[in-house]
Order: sequence, then C-alpha cells, then structure tokens
Amino acid sequence: MVIDVHGHLTAPDSLYVYKANILSHRGSHGRGKVEISDDEMIAFLNEPTFNTGKSHLELLKEVGTDVQLLSPRPYQMMHAEKPAKVSQWFIEECNNLVAQQCRLFPNVFKGICGLPQSPDASPKNCIPELERCVKGFGFVGCLLNPDPSEATNYDVPGLGDEYWYPLYEKLVELDVPGYIHGAGCRSIRHSYSTHFINEETIAVVALASSRVFKDFPKLKIVCSHGGGAVPYHAGRFQAPSLRR
Amino acid sequence: MVIDVHGHLTAPDSLYVYKANILSHRGSHGRGKVEISDDEMIAFLNEPTFNTGKSHLELLKEVGTDVQLLSPRPYQMMHAEKPAKVSQWFIEECNNLVAQQCRLFPNVFKGICGLPQSPDASPKNCIPELERCVKGFGFVGCLLNPDPSEATNYDVPGLGDEYWYPLYEKLVELDVPGYIHGAGCRSIRHSYSTHFINEETIAVVALASSRVFKDFPKLKIVCSHGGGAVPYHAGRFQAPSLRR
Amino acid sequence: MVIDVHGHLTAPDSLYVYKANILSHRGSHGRGKVEISDDEMIAFLNEPTFNTGKSHLELLKEVGTDVQLLSPRPYQMMHAEKPAKVSQWFIEECNNLVAQQCRLFPNVFKGICGLPQSPDASPKNCIPELERCVKGFGFVGCLLNPDPSEATNYDVPGLGDEYWYPLYEKLVELDVPGYIHGAGCRSIRHSYSTHFINEETIAVVALASSRVFKDFPKLKIVCSHGGGAVPYHAGRFQAPSLRR
Amino acid sequence: MVIDVHGHLTAPDSLYVYKANILSHRGSHGRGKVEISDDEMIAFLNEPTFNTGKSHLELLKEVGTDVQLLSPRPYQMMHAEKPAKVSQWFIEECNNLVAQQCRLFPNVFKGICGLPQSPDASPKNCIPELERCVKGFGFVGCLLNPDPSEATNYDVPGLGDEYWYPLYEKLVELDVPGYIHGAGCRSIRHSYSTHFINEETIAVVALASSRVFKDFPKLKIVCSHGGGAVPYHAGRFQAPSLRR
Amino acid sequence: MVIDVHGHLTAPDSLYVYKANILSHRGSHGRGKVEISDDEMIAFLNEPTFNTGKSHLELLKEVGTDVQLLSPRPYQMMHAEKPAKVSQWFIEECNNLVAQQCRLFPNVFKGICGLPQSPDASPKNCIPELERCVKGFGFVGCLLNPDPSEATNYDVPGLGDEYWYPLYEKLVELDVPGYIHGAGCRSIRHSYSTHFINEETIAVVALASSRVFKDFPKLKIVCSHGGGAVPYHAGRFQAPSLRR
Amino acid sequence: MVIDVHGHLTAPDSLYVYKANILSHRGSHGRGKVEISDDEMIAFLNEPTFNTGKSHLELLKEVGTDVQLLSPRPYQMMHAEKPAKVSQWFIEECNNLVAQQCRLFPNVFKGICGLPQSPDASPKNCIPELERCVKGFGFVGCLLNPDPSEATNYDVPGLGDEYWYPLYEKLVELDVPGYIHGAGCRSIRHSYSTHFINEETIAVVALASSRVFKDFPKLKIVCSHGGGAVPYHAGRFQAPSLRR
Repeated sequence: MVIDVHGHLTAPDSLYVYKANILSHRGSHGRGKVEISDDEMIAFLNEPTFNTGKSHLELLKEVGTDVQLLSPRPYQMMHAEKPAKVSQWFIEECNNLVAQQCRLFPNVFKGICGLPQSPDASPKNCIPELERCVKGFGFVGCLLNPDPSEATNYDVPGLGDEYWYPLYEKLVELDVPGYIHGAGCRSIRHSYSTHFINEETIAVVALASSRVFKDFPKLKIVCSHGGGAVPYHAGRFQAPSLRR
Repeated sequence: MVIDVHGHLTAPDSLYVYKANILSHRGSHGRGKVEISDDEMIAFLNEPTFNTGKSHLELLKEVGTDVQLLSPRPYQMMHAEKPAKVSQWFIEECNNLVAQQCRLFPNVFKGICGLPQSPDASPKNCIPELERCVKGFGFVGCLLNPDPSEATNYDVPGLGDEYWYPLYEKLVELDVPGYIHGAGCRSIRHSYSTHFINEETIAVVALASSRVFKDFPKLKIVCSHGGGAVPYHAGRFQAPSLRR
Repeated sequence: MVIDVHGHLTAPDSLYVYKANILSHRGSHGRGKVEISDDEMIAFLNEPTFNTGKSHLELLKEVGTDVQLLSPRPYQMMHAEKPAKVSQWFIEECNNLVAQQCRLFPNVFKGICGLPQSPDASPKNCIPELERCVKGFGFVGCLLNPDPSEATNYDVPGLGDEYWYPLYEKLVELDVPGYIHGAGCRSIRHSYSTHFINEETIAVVALASSRVFKDFPKLKIVCSHGGGAVPYHAGRFQAPSLRR
Repeated sequence: MVIDVHGHLTAPDSLYVYKANILSHRGSHGRGKVEISDDEMIAFLNEPTFNTGKSHLELLKEVGTDVQLLSPRPYQMMHAEKPAKVSQWFIEECNNLVAQQCRLFPNVFKGICGLPQSPDASPKNCIPELERCVKGFGFVGCLLNPDPSEATNYDVPGLGDEYWYPLYEKLVELDVPGYIHGAGCRSIRHSYSTHFINEETIAVVALASSRVFKDFPKLKIVCSHGGGAVPYHAGRFQAPSLRR
Repeated sequence: MVIDVHGHLTAPDSLYVYKANILSHRGSHGRGKVEISDDEMIAFLNEPTFNTGKSHLELLKEVGTDVQLLSPRPYQMMHAEKPAKVSQWFIEECNNLVAQQCRLFPNVFKGICGLPQSPDASPKNCIPELERCVKGFGFVGCLLNPDPSEATNYDVPGLGDEYWYPLYEKLVELDVPGYIHGAGCRSIRHSYSTHFINEETIAVVALASSRVFKDFPKLKIVCSHGGGAVPYHAGRFQAPSLRR
Repeated sequence: MVIDVHGHLTAPDSLYVYKANILSHRGSHGRGKVEISDDEMIAFLNEPTFNTGKSHLELLKEVGTDVQLLSPRPYQMMHAEKPAKVSQWFIEECNNLVAQQCRLFPNVFKGICGLPQSPDASPKNCIPELERCVKGFGFVGCLLNPDPSEATNYDVPGLGDEYWYPLYEKLVELDVPGYIHGAGCRSIRHSYSTHFINEETIAVVALASSRVFKDFPKLKIVCSHGGGAVPYHAGRFQAPSLRR
C-alpha cells in the first residue's frame, strides 16, 4: 500500500475568500465560517485543479497513491499574523475542511492538523486544537512549524528546547506524530520555499543535539522535504570538530 | 440625476483568492493577475450579492441611483502590508476590475482608483497608478487614506502637511478630486469602522487648519462618512479657545 | 437646578510651576507639594480668569450653573510621562486643589478626581487614589481616560476589555460613575482636541459591543463631548453589516 | 572685578506656567509668549527668591559678585522633549528673559543663551538662535549640553566628533565661548545632578583626546562644575596605559 | 602590612584565546575550559608582563605591596554579551585562574570574584558563583558592576534599589564586601575608562541617598577609583538644594 | 595539481589575544597590531595544531594538497559587532597574517581576504580592503558573507539585489572571484554551522533567480559547502510550481 504522508488540502475558493475577509476586518465582523456542502465538496474534488487538467482524486490515482495524509497548506497558515485569532480561525477552518474530506473519503484521506502556533504564545496554546482534531475527527498527526515568527526574528527557541515540551507531552499522550514542516516566510531575503528547507535543517540538528528523545522516548517526529539539508551534509554534522 | 459618489467594488471570488495567495507567497510566485472575462463580469453583476437577494445593478436601480462612482473596498487595501508590492499588486487588480466594470457599464459606473499608499513611502509613489487610472481608464478621482499605517503608529503626517503636496499637485494637474476615506485598522482597540470616522475627523481638522487650500486653490477634496465627527462638533472646533 | 457635570479646575500659577519643576528634576528633588492658603484660593476664584474679564465663580453665575462637578484639566494630566510618579504626583495635587475648592464652596463644587493612569500599569494602580478622593474628600466620580498612552501607541485595550475590570469593580463598590474624557495627545497628526473626540468614539463603541454592562449591571458611565462621533453616526453603527 | 560665569535665570512664575502649558497642548494652541513688563521684572529681581529671604540682586551683592553671566536653568531645558519645537519655544523664551534682565541691569548681567539642541537634529539647527542672541541681544556665549538625549540613549556623538563642527565654526566666527553644562536627565538610575558631572567628565575627555582644538585653534570652551571628575582623576587620564 | 585591594588578574594568553573562541562559536562548541598547569602559572607570574620588563610578582615587591586582592579584569567581563552564558563561562574561568594563583601564592594573593551579572537577569543569578568562590575557594569579596548593560541603556536600577537586595543579603550572610567597580562600555561617546568613574559616581550617590545601609547594617561596600567624582564634588552633593 | 580552495588561517594565539582586547576596550586603546616575526610564523606552521598532532603544513601534505587558498576563519569575523571598526581591525589583521603566510610559503598558499562587511553599511565600504589585499598582497579572491547581520535580523538584501552591485563591479574589475561562505551566527536557534548551510542555500537561490549574471557576465562566484542544500533539492527548485 502506497501512503503519501505529505499531502496538502485542495480547497474551494470560499476558503480563500474567508481568509481575505478576516485579514481585512481583523475580527471585527466576527469569526464567521466556511460552509461547503458535502455535495459541493465531492464535486470539487473531482474537478480539475491547479491547472493540471485533472482532479485531486485523479492525480492520486495516477501516481499510485492509496492513502494520503492531508494537512493544511503550510505557506498559507500565517502564524505570525496579528491578532493571532485571525490565524487561529483560518487554521481551524482548514482543519474542518480536511476533516470533511476525510469523512467523505475515509479510505483515501487521513487528517494531519495545522496548529494555531504563534511567536508570542507558548506551544501550550495549541493543545486544544490538537485534541479537537485527534479526538474529535480522528486525525493521525499534526504539522509542526519550527518558526512561527515566519522569518521575522530569530528568537523562537529551537525544537530541542523545553519551550516545546508541553506539545511533545501531548503528542506522546495522544500517540500521534508531529510532522515538521516550515511555513510562511516574511523575510525579504528569501521565500517560503527556501525557508522550509532551512528551518527543517535547523529543526533536525536542534533535535539531534538535544535531550528531547531521551526525555520523550515515545515521541514520534517526521520531517518533510528530506530532512532539509541534513542528509546531504551528514558528514559535516558528524565531524568531530562540531561535536560538543 | 442621482449620483452616488460612494460606491465600492463588488468583485468575484477570484479577486480574494488572488489576495490570499499573494499574502501567502509574498511575491515569490510572481505578480500574477486576476482574469475575469467580460461575460463572467456581466453575469456576476447581475447575480444576487452580499446576502441581499439582489444584484449590485438591481440594488442601484432600487434605491434610484443613476450613476455610481466605484472605488476599491477601502478596508481590503492593506496599505501597511509588507512588502509593499503585495498591497500595490492587489490595489492595481482592484482598479483593473473597477475599470472593467466601468467599460462594461459606461452609463452606470465611473471609476475612483485606490492608490498604493504606504507608511514607508512618500505619496509621490502613488502618481504612476493615479495617472494610469485617470489617463488610461478615464477614472474621475482617487481614494485618499489619511492613515496608510493602518493604525500601527501615529507618525504619518496629517493631510495639512507638505508630505502630501506631490499628490495634491498631481490631482490639480489631472483636475480630479481626492476622496478622503479611511482604510484598514490593525489596532487592538477598535475596528476599521471607527477608524474610518476618526481618521476623517483628523483629516478635515488637519486640512482646515492648514495652508493646503491657499497653496492649491484648485484642489478638490471630498470627504466620506459625513466628515467624520466634524459637523457634529463644529461649534467646538470653532471655539476661540481652540483657535491658534 | 442646573448641574454642570463637565467643569475643570481653575488653578493658581503655583500648580503649573510645580508641574514644570517635577518635569525638570523628574523626582530627584522629592515629591514636594502645592500649598495655597484658603484665603488665597477664595481670592483666586473671585479674580478674572482665562482672559474673560470674569472670575470662575462669576462665570458660573452668568451662565446659570448652580452646581459644578470639578475635575483636573484632562489635557494637563500627562498619563504617558515617565517616570509615572511625576504624573501621579501632579494628579494628586490637582485632586487636592479640587478638594480644597469643594471644601471652600460646598454648595457650588463637587469633586471628580483624575486617576494616575499609565500605559504601563494595570488600572488597578488607580484604586488607592480613587478611594482617597471618594472616601477622604467625598468626591462623586472620576475621570476615565481611554488612552493613557497619549496617542503614542494603539496597544492599550479598549474599555470593553477585562483589563479595565478592577477599576469598574471599585466604581460599583463605591457607587460613583466613571466619566469618560480623553486626555493628552503626543501624536504629530492631531491635537488633544480631536483626540478627545476620537477616543470617546472608540470608548462608546467598545463599551456598547462588550459584555461590560452585563458583567457590571450597576456600573455608571458618563461620556463627555456628546459621545464623540457616535450619536452623529448612530445609524452607521447600528447597520446590520457592522453587527457581529 | 569679580565675574560669576555660572549664573542661571531667576524667572517669574509665568515662565513655568508657559512651560506647563506648551507641554500639555504640545503646540496645538500655538507658540504663545511670556510677557513680563520691565517694571514687573525689576520688582521681581528685588524680591526674595528661592526661600533665601533675599533677592537675586541682594545675593549677588552679598557674595561680592560684580558681574554675572546669566543663562537659562539647564535642568529645565528639556532638549529631549518631542516635538522639538516645544523645547525650542521654551528656550527662546528663557533667552528672551535673560535678554530683558541684561537690558535692565547692563552693569550686572551679561547673557549666555541656551540652544535648541535635540538628539534628533544636527547642532546646525542651533545656529539661528545663537546668532539671534549674540548679534541681536549682545550675549557673550552659549550653553553647550553634551547630551541632548537627556540620558535616554548613548548615541549622541561626543564633543570631539565632527558632528559638533558646525556649531564650533559659528562660535569661532562670533568669537564667543561655548559653556559646557549638562542638562536634563531622564534615566531612572540617577538625577540631573550626577548627570551634569558625568557628562562634563565625558566632554572634557572627549575634547582632550580629539582634534577639535587643532581644527579650531580659536575655539573657546569653558566647562562648569570644575570639569566634572577630570581634575580629581587627572593622573588616571594621563597614565600611559590609557594613552592611544 | 600593605594590602592592595585593587589588583586584577594577569593571565596567560590562553584565557583570551578561550574568550575569542566562545565569542565566535557562541556556545555551539560547548563550554570548554582554560587549562594552565601549576608549573606554567608559576612561570608565567615570574615572567615580564605588560611591557614593563618586570613580572607581576616583581612589580608587587617593587611598590611594596605585601598582599594583593586579585579580581578579574573588569573591562574584559562583557556583562552585556548575549547569550549571557558566554559572559558567565568567561567570568567563571577568570575566577578559576584567580583561585589558582591564590592557591599557589597564598601569602600574596586573596581572591575577589567577578559575578555573572547581566542586564536581563536579576542579581539573584549571581549567588551560585559568589558562593562557589567564597565557600569553595575562600575568596574575600566580589566585584559589583553598577551597569551590567555596558552603557547600552539607562534602565538598570541604581544600587539603592531593591533590585540588588538578593545580592546584598548574600554578601551579609557570607560576611564579605562588595567591591564597586565599573566594567565594559559599549557607548560611542566614551570609553570604559570614563565609564568606570561615572558609574562609581552614580553608585555612591545612589547608595548614599538610599535605605540600603539601614536595611543591611552589616553590609560592607568598597568603592574603587576614589569614589568616582564624589569626594571632589562632596560639597555639591551636600548642598541643601539637592537634598530631598 | 590539487588545489584546496577552502582553507582557513591557522594563527598563533596572539591574534586571539588581540581580538579579545579590542572587543574589551572597543577601540579606546587605539587600533593596535598583531606582530609575529617571520621566524615565529614559520615555526608556528610547523608545530602541531588543532589537537591533531600534526602541523598545518604536514596536514596539507598528508591529504595531498599542493596549493591551498587561505582565508580568515569565517566564524571569527564578527561582522555584526559594534562599533564596526572593531570587526574591521580584526579582519585586516587576519588578512595581514594570511599575506604573511603567503609571502613565506608562496608555492603553498594563495590569499583570499575577508571583507569588513557590516549590516549597517553598503558593501561599497569593503572596496578599499579588497583592493589593498588584491593589489597590495596579490590575493586571488575574497570571502562573501551573505548575512553580515550574523542572524540578528532578516533585513540584509539577498545576493541577487543591487545592494551588492558595487562589490560585484569591483570583483569584475580586479578579475577575482567572490567566495560565498556564511559567517557568525548570533541566533539562539542554531549555530554558525547550520547558519553556513542555510545562508549558502539562500545565496545560491537568490543569485540563480536574479539578473546578476546578466548584469555582470564576467563575475565569478564560488560557493562553499557544496552549495548549501541546493544540489540535494535541485529538483524542488526547478519544479514549475516554483518558477516565476
């Protein structure tokens, strides 16, 4: 069985209209909601998408994927947006749509949730949404963005830091993996695409040189994009001159 | 003839999908473009909108409007977004859609353009877009947002300041009015809705206590929302104790 | 009986000499004190004031005021000054002079105290001065400045926020109203005079869209300057499109 | 003949009422003016002052001073206040009063002006006021505050830096000395009184280790408060280990 | 017996190589250690030093010093460096070398430790190192730097503030004095050399005008460099006009 | 012939003592100088180094290197240090030692200079040092650090930006390559070692998606560490979805 662990949500336009709206009124029109009927969603997943001439479901079949783990599109999550509730609402809506697609196609999709991370809040604030998705929807993991600041500063502690322990503890308790995946990038120097790779490099090195897996022997972590640059530079990171 | 000077663009979803995308990739996928065929646009303007059960064109008829001046939706313009090009691209696309609607319904709509204002740039940078819209599309004025910082600081000079003179000069040269209208608000204390009123109050008092109309006797300025709080407090602002 | 709820302290020069001094030594000469004998104060209130050719007491008679609620001059309170004790000392002295005038003319004046608000401190820190004035001097209310930052930032929570609850609780306990009145303005864009109006607009909307009066059904709030822009724009704020 | 080079202005209350007012309205009531008639000023200088039981003129006689150089009170100058015009207006008014006292008592007083220094402006901006006082009033020097930031940062270049050259050039041209004297202090760590000494220490060391007197061989500099700590620590500053 | 209370560590090059290294890798190579054998250290202290042609021990003899209190070189301590552990490690190494020299020459040297002060941490964080040195090595006091910010801001509370009480309490408990000595200076306006004097002036005035010796009657404080400017300006600081 | 293009300076302790000193006095003891006689330097290069038991020259032989390009150790360069002259002096001394080793072993070493880059200065300020090394010493290239901020912000423009053009122009004129190599890292999230890789990834992508090689067809750029992550992720960066 072929399982694609790295699939992202393909969503109807109304998700992005919702996003544009909450970014404009910044909460003053209230939280709102994205509503797509099951019929609309089924139709949507069978329509051509992303200028490929094929639908999401057809593309899966074409490449031989049996099951796809589906998560919100990371570069859309805007973890550094203020007020944080704007980002949180959007991520919740993304997770709702992932849940809807999983419910409609239970043999094809399994959910991975986005978390309402924020550079100004402890990862503790992500636990309610994580529980809602795993316990409520049956999701099988969550995205873990090592840099919720979206490249606006260098101050968020690395993944080896105790800052992240409340989240690790909950992942162990729920017995689901954290899926490391960079997200938005607001730097003028690069784009989300290189930021993904760089953050995943930092994340793997930070974990590998930390006590995290000693402190949480049952923690499961998966890293996207081939572990950033780490496998390519493995020799370098193992050189004695860099060992502490 | 009834002319509504204060109409905003009703746009298909693809404008907002475009906005959500450029805010996510922040320019790294390139500028892109919103494309709506004339047929789609004509159909769209005849479909029910904003949960009213009626189309934009029907609503105009119902209230007896003959001609409507159409401008981008101010609270969507995101003048304080960084990089500034993201806001600029979006505003250009809004102006393009306004131009398309004006071209399709020349007896109904006249265009008022949004400007790519930014708290970090002189209003001089708005002149190319202003000229593109007035000379190229036949627009009859532009929006003037007194606070492009979107309530993130108190440092943008008031409309009475020479900071704004390059724009005033161009408005006089093109012989079109500037239409004062507040825009986005990122403060936690209030919403764009009160920010509109407050900024318009500041704007009118700033202009009235300045040399602007002495220096530009042919400048035409229109203020939305009844001049903010000024007419209601006219006596206060005329009291001797407040005169310099 | 005509009661003027919006009177401010007319004070002898020595109050302002005191203010200029503490602003210069910033506390290093100690707190000091403004001392005006009762005879001096009575004489002062009967001397012409503010270039009107008439005394404060004569002006009251002339316009038919029977009782005047007397508070510190808001634009003098300097809530954003640092160190905060400089502002606190000045406000205490203002309250002392208000108390002295109330004691000397008990049928004419009732006291409204200023509070040592600060953008860096919880409103909790105002409770001792509020109690000193209400319990000690018999004052009948306090000024409530919605923006102690004096327009230096947009971060102070709106009056609908729980940030203000300790003060509301004490107002209910003491059974005196809070009197909303803007204060100093350090923005380059406008002056205290428009800032008053704008802040009062924000304050009324913030309270009206909050749970404050549900949580404190006995809280009494009065707003100066006709409620900012709110009555003039009442229709706007009641429009369905702005309702949450 | 005994000349006291270090006298500061003793001024009537109205100067400080003026200061308190412009600090409160921050310019929005206009510049205003302190007006004291010659008769009032003569009377004032003959009245007891500063709780000494003696007048300014009597105190001069008592200690045997024949001529006193009179300058604004440094700790009142508020060079770091914003907007800078508030500080500038106050200093101009101080200089006007110094000029009035010099005109009324030409054998007793000679003027030393304060300058509208600002941490955000080049010392160049002080030249018009310096010329007004020296050419217009016959003043014989100016105060030189080495730290116009009033201890809010450590960024103003030392007196040995070319930053100060426009002012030195003008002092040479007008052939009047600069009188080094610290001014206001907004630090929480100390008061203007120790700040004076510390800044004068920095100033003397900065000048002594610079090219200033090579570049301006005719520049005259006087330092108040015995040169800060320099004479006491002269040996230290001459030690080879500290020489470059 | 002549006791020099103000001696600083003369150390072999490897201390500074260590410092340059931890400043470059900023902790990523681990803490490391400076290792100098007793034989090397004895040889080093008998070699000519500081371009004097004489050794540290010879210089002591030459000037007639019997016992020298030895502390880390203050201007090397880099209290404001980030991450703070870099400064802490270096100071611990300095203290170790002081301890080694005291152990090797117990009749000549007594130790005074540097403390891992930081502008971002309470002085509480210095207690473990103070105890390690006094209890473990028999040191007889510690350096006290009044400005761990190294002249990068004016926000560290003065020595009269309760901020310092945890340290004072421990000094009393251990019955050793605190030795006031300025340290590094990152201002562009002056150098560590004037900063020493200025900070010591601030420190003495702050203590003298505080409750510290009332609250800690057994606290022993020694001040280097002749008390900054205080003895020279003693009259000034005792003048009634400066008394609170 | 085997040429190692990526060798860094092995230097005697006195270079690091020099570095520790200028970081401590921050320029107030003057610039100073590292002086190592030719005999000392020859001896040093033949002594065991870096705990390998072998000398720099022996190590070259052992691995079969004929010629080594020698540059300053990048993680020591401290481009973000303030004042910038401290970093500049150190880099000049490093370049001097590289020049000395090249002069002493002309068949073995060729020089690559470090540049006095700074996050607060245009790369233009590096031209004099580049010319001194290439024209004066015969160096064959220079290090190019894409992030002189040392991971303290994300604001330095990427290598594709015109910000770098003055340097590119000079490299073309002198006909020497720029050697991309990350340098110091002050972030708490990672170390210089991952920062190297990440910055090189950003640099290669920035150049590849820019007009630099169109505008400077003769510019030669070499990238260290295998091009960061780029070769490993080449497919990703060539994917259509990422093309503009």
